[in-house]
Amino acid sequence: MKGFAMLDFGKVGWIEKDRPVPGPYDAIVRPLAVAPCTSDVHTVYEAAFPKEMVEFPRIIGHEAVGEVVEVGDKVEDFKYGDKVVVPAITPEWRTREVQLGIHQHSGGLLAGWKFSNPLRDGGKDGVFAEYFHVNDADMNLAHLPDDIKLESAVMAADMMTTGFHGAELADIQIGETVVVIGIGPVGLMSVAGAKLQGAGRIIAVGGRRKITYDLAREYGASDIVDYTKGPIETQVLELTGGKKVDKVIIAGGGPDIIYEAVKIVRPGGIVANVHYFGSGADAYIKNELKHRDVLYLGRVEWGAGMSHIRIVGGLCPGGRVRMERLLSIIRYKRVDPSKLVTHRFRGLERVEDAFYLMREKPLKLVKPVVFME
Amino acid sequence: MKGFAMLDFGKVGWIEKDRPVPGPYDAIVRPLAVAPCTSDVHTVYEAAFPKEMVEFPRIIGHEAVGEVVEVGDKVEDFKYGDKVVVPAITPEWRTREVQLGIHQHSGGLLAGWKFSNPLRDGGKDGVFAEYFHVNDADMNLAHLPDDIKLESAVMAADMMTTGFHGAELADIQIGETVVVIGIGPVGLMSVAGAKLQGAGRIIAVGGRRKITYDLAREYGASDIVDYTKGPIETQVLELTGGKKVDKVIIAGGGPDIIYEAVKIVRPGGIVANVHYFGSGADAYIKNELKHRDVLYLGRVEWGAGMSHIRIVGGLCPGGRVRMERLLSIIRYKRVDPSKLVTHRFRGLERVEDAFYLMREKPLKLVKPVVFME
Amino acid sequence: MKGFAMLDFGKVGWIEKDRPVPGPYDAIVRPLAVAPCTSDVHTVYEAAFPKEMVEFPRIIGHEAVGEVVEVGDKVEDFKYGDKVVVPAITPEWRTREVQLGIHQHSGGLLAGWKFSNPLRDGGKDGVFAEYFHVNDADMNLAHLPDDIKLESAVMAADMMTTGFHGAELADIQIGETVVVIGIGPVGLMSVAGAKLQGAGRIIAVGGRRKITYDLAREYGASDIVDYTKGPIETQVLELTGGKKVDKVIIAGGGPDIIYEAVKIVRPGGIVANVHYFGSGADAYIKNELKHRDVLYLGRVEWGAGMSHIRIVGGLCPGGRVRMERLLSIIRYKRVDPSKLVTHRFRGLERVEDAFYLMREKPLKLVKPVVFME
Amino acid sequence: MKGFAMLDFGKVGWIEKDRPVPGPYDAIVRPLAVAPCTSDVHTVYEAAFPKEMVEFPRIIGHEAVGEVVEVGDKVEDFKYGDKVVVPAITPEWRTREVQLGIHQHSGGLLAGWKFSNPLRDGGKDGVFAEYFHVNDADMNLAHLPDDIKLESAVMAADMMTTGFHGAELADIQIGETVVVIGIGPVGLMSVAGAKLQGAGRIIAVGGRRKITYDLAREYGASDIVDYTKGPIETQVLELTGGKKVDKVIIAGGGPDIIYEAVKIVRPGGIVANVHYFGSGADAYIKNELKHRDVLYLGRVEWGAGMSHIRIVGGLCPGGRVRMERLLSIIRYKRVDPSKLVTHRFRGLERVEDAFYLMREKPLKLVKPVVFME
Repeated sequence: MKGFAMLDFGKVGWIEKDRPVPGPYDAIVRPLAVAPCTSDVHTVYEAAFPKEMVEFPRIIGHEAVGEVVEVGDKVEDFKYGDKVVVPAITPEWRTREVQLGIHQHSGGLLAGWKFSNPLRDGGKDGVFAEYFHVNDADMNLAHLPDDIKLESAVMAADMMTTGFHGAELADIQIGETVVVIGIGPVGLMSVAGAKLQGAGRIIAVGGRRKITYDLAREYGASDIVDYTKGPIETQVLELTGGKKVDKVIIAGGGPDIIYEAVKIVRPGGIVANVHYFGSGADAYIKNELKHRDVLYLGRVEWGAGMSHIRIVGGLCPGGRVRMERLLSIIRYKRVDPSKLVTHRFRGLERVEDAFYLMREKPLKLVKPVVFME
Repeated sequence: MKGFAMLDFGKVGWIEKDRPVPGPYDAIVRPLAVAPCTSDVHTVYEAAFPKEMVEFPRIIGHEAVGEVVEVGDKVEDFKYGDKVVVPAITPEWRTREVQLGIHQHSGGLLAGWKFSNPLRDGGKDGVFAEYFHVNDADMNLAHLPDDIKLESAVMAADMMTTGFHGAELADIQIGETVVVIGIGPVGLMSVAGAKLQGAGRIIAVGGRRKITYDLAREYGASDIVDYTKGPIETQVLELTGGKKVDKVIIAGGGPDIIYEAVKIVRPGGIVANVHYFGSGADAYIKNELKHRDVLYLGRVEWGAGMSHIRIVGGLCPGGRVRMERLLSIIRYKRVDPSKLVTHRFRGLERVEDAFYLMREKPLKLVKPVVFME
Repeated sequence: MKGFAMLDFGKVGWIEKDRPVPGPYDAIVRPLAVAPCTSDVHTVYEAAFPKEMVEFPRIIGHEAVGEVVEVGDKVEDFKYGDKVVVPAITPEWRTREVQLGIHQHSGGLLAGWKFSNPLRDGGKDGVFAEYFHVNDADMNLAHLPDDIKLESAVMAADMMTTGFHGAELADIQIGETVVVIGIGPVGLMSVAGAKLQGAGRIIAVGGRRKITYDLAREYGASDIVDYTKGPIETQVLELTGGKKVDKVIIAGGGPDIIYEAVKIVRPGGIVANVHYFGSGADAYIKNELKHRDVLYLGRVEWGAGMSHIRIVGGLCPGGRVRMERLLSIIRYKRVDPSKLVTHRFRGLERVEDAFYLMREKPLKLVKPVVFME
Repeated sequence: MKGFAMLDFGKVGWIEKDRPVPGPYDAIVRPLAVAPCTSDVHTVYEAAFPKEMVEFPRIIGHEAVGEVVEVGDKVEDFKYGDKVVVPAITPEWRTREVQLGIHQHSGGLLAGWKFSNPLRDGGKDGVFAEYFHVNDADMNLAHLPDDIKLESAVMAADMMTTGFHGAELADIQIGETVVVIGIGPVGLMSVAGAKLQGAGRIIAVGGRRKITYDLAREYGASDIVDYTKGPIETQVLELTGGKKVDKVIIAGGGPDIIYEAVKIVRPGGIVANVHYFGSGADAYIKNELKHRDVLYLGRVEWGAGMSHIRIVGGLCPGGRVRMERLLSIIRYKRVDPSKLVTHRFRGLERVEDAFYLMREKPLKLVKPVVFME
């Protein structure tokens, strides 16, 4: 079968591979719609992990809805022909991390993430292929209801669960003021998630792509800050009359973005991160005389360690129940994620175009989707 | 009246001042026993806050038990002659921060801390004086039971509440493995607090002062790591057979200690800080071409932002109910804080000796207490 | 001044009283708009509390927006002429219950509720008068923004905060299925609150008044169950295909309603109550040979005590920050509570008509509001 | 093989059965030490579940440590000869309830409980046999460390995890006052658990068996109330000077015990149940003209539904990580559960004597253990 793969850091292309074979609890799925994710771009072009840990070639892509074409003999709830939503995170559920309540890290740090995860240990081929393999189908797939369209459902796999997780990590209370930094598709879903969890005022921080401003407003932003126009802190505090905000969700930004977030959040507030930091600050720590790859926050702004400002960040939840709940959000019209989709392609081979589009990020792009036919 | 004050950064001495006058809800207290705190030393010698924000001279000290000598006419539960425990944190309870559930920051960042807080706005004279002023006595004082000795009670004011708060912020679950970094008096109370909240294995990280090793064991440490013997990470992972721990409590360390803590905690774990960072890393952030006063963590170790490792830190809880609950802990023999007291002085004038002792930290010192007669 | 009062159980009428006088932290407010509440009806006609504990006459009413006409000399943020929203719950903030985090019970069980609380100890005259007294104005009043209309703001005082509190107590997670039992004005706000906190499917259980069905749908209900048509359990499980639901919010019903709720919630779910039980079951407990005034749940349905189904219930939050946050919800168009208002009256004297209307509950009524001019 | 079974309600005896066979993920274990539980007695003599749902004969017993004699070919961490602790709760970890965070109800209400669970669906043979079957060995067994004695480890299987869960459900804060009702072996572990989680004063409520009073004190009780001497409420409030307590843990009592507990807990407190209610109140609800099997609470005492007193109850946590954490508690000497063991037997056939002992509850009994040789 054909798949679109990372051939080396900085290099992608089509490869031929054998169609995967299911274990007793697994399913083989043929994609109906897939979407490229910025994290695929990070993986290929930023080389977030050292080369010796990475497997080449690796088929990329982790956002898909599809059709089951084969199941293992222990699979009970899915059969040939079923239409399914496939979460980006498909953990093994028989691990001690699951008993600890962190299925995202089932088997190790981030190891619940399998599709297109570049690591030799833990990762596997992604969904940009004629077929892909889903471990533990009964626990990781969700049936696609007839009344939910493909392009909405494919947004549940990663964009909704990640964006909403920002709001969950921020533990939003009714009527709080929330800043969302970064309004690409994940950040837009964090705006929607903040609204969905009860935020009052929502200030969205965006940049060059004005199309995201309108969408942010549609999804619930009450104010927009353009970070290209000046420091975030200055602009946010001007909007609030100098009052710090209750919570900040980070869905984009450079290595200094936690530093910036801490400056605008009140004591007892939360900085919740769902951004994948492809690179950190190259910080020269003088008293240690060494360089390090770090993220950082201001000592005084963080109350010299005593501000009760919490810094949290986490990979999105996956698995079947999560997907079913997100499908419920779509079905009952709480949030319509299909508004994210600005570009549509037809045919597996167009994955390549969609991927490059995601890399280039033209002004009119939010999220492309590739339908298989 | 006489008081021992910070005269300038780096300079302390005795001053004469008028005895304070109570407002209608306040009390004036004569100390029976006081204790100097490392944070007093930080305040004076590290100049944690810029000079223009600070008031000189300011009487220092924030750990005291005493006797009420005068009350305002609205005070209901305390009267002349009552023996009282005075928390280091004495908030105003009529503020919006109290409605937000963060009394420590009542009125602003750290503003629930009043005694010997050096800031012109928010701080006030401390307890190293013949008399001191307590705002909102009914809400901030606790009666000292007859069966609790002075040196135990004075440890509740700051050492117990701060050390225990480390365990609270770490949200310890029954049987978890916890590392406590720093085993001065606060860290020792974090060890006791971790045990008190249900930790299984407790690994205490200490340094030069071997006396603290014995105390750490008495308070519940199952293992001791000497950070002068090698990297904390190496030593902890050797003890655990390579397994990361559930929680880390920071009660001491330099600006790189959060970086070190993140390296040894598992996904979904917590790094809980109760250390007052008198100074941060002088980090030269290359992509920004500037120096900053920061705390930092490793990008990769933090899962590129997605590890679910939470970083929290906060000023200790204060107020009456907190003190009453800590007195209950002492009375019912859950923890005996008087073991911390290694040096005893008599007479207000000996505060000076106790303070210098705290600054020098000789090998046999854990905590000095000064009794008034 | 004139006020509409409970004269005895079962008897209301107008009385003359002196205009109240503010203490140093208090305000006197002239109502601009008020609304009667079913709980006023319960208080008068169900005699929920024994007569010897109750004060007669007591002016009733606890939902108001108004104008400040006088303030004590310690009040900082409010002055003559300010328009304010007055929460139904106006605690004293200097109590140990506030330190415990339960301001609703500041001073004792339910004692944060003052206006029209019938108890001699704790209660005081309500808002159906020419003037009323507000304790601790800086902590309990919120400024009414110009852009929020009176009839929306007066719904924040009790209906929104109570209804939303049902959703808060239910700890709703994104995409959960929630049943709201009772869709009078509080229940409708629980529907809106469930949506606001992230529920997926929301099943509203109503009765005779069909007008509430439409409103429930507008506020977010996806399904309606009419309890007059058969058992709630049967109807809900038919809708869900036999699956129990995640959470139930009780906003109405008789003494057996907790029993009914437990039957439809899954293990680990929550039954969250914001209903004021004016009377309980008159249960004859055979093994004890006595009658008791109780609420009850099924032993087997509750897993013989081991189902992890939590039963919670609580008085709505009050105070200034809560009101400001609800006003934020209105301003940013998260929820429009003015849809509740079906009947409008003009003039204080019409409070009487509005009250009787609330007692009779005609088919077209949801909530009446009385504007002062 | 031989096993001690429930033959019918009210009737036990020895049966012969085939030795069980492991599935690919399972283990067969030979017991080294077992203990009978009061719930076995309830199951047999109270007929908690209707007969048509129950399977006869069913081997009883669910507390064991043992030796692995056979494993399925997918088992990775256990092999022939390994000594293991077997939790009473051994869930299937591949279910939607696990994704909801309630492994105790994996597969349905209480369905994580398998050994000696009498239900045809869900239950299976228990551990009072020559061999028994453990589903999903890697997820449900824990290695028994050499330095932990059998009689301590067998107490972890149910007594510790259940008793401690009472403290967990009660969400104990440092220094709170806690009442534990019922001080059989589970209640004693709730006393120990309350201390382990940070309680200050602990009031234990016991009855006839004075031996439990001494143990309660050893495990942390500061006061003892004898419920045979008068109402619990009167005695507790006398001890506290009329103040209600923060939390109540129920580990024993009749159908009215929740009613009693609610009367002594403060607003915002918790009533946490780990008691298995074998029978409820036979309540004649007058307004419904019917009898029902219920548990109940006082309407007024519960604040007419608005007291914020939470009623929670749940089956103990099981699985491997839980057992490992409890073994850590034993190893690091936080709690010594072996003090519970008052009677020791040798030989499988003595299970019968131990069981009858548990049924009769003589004055000197706390917990019997049967060692296999």
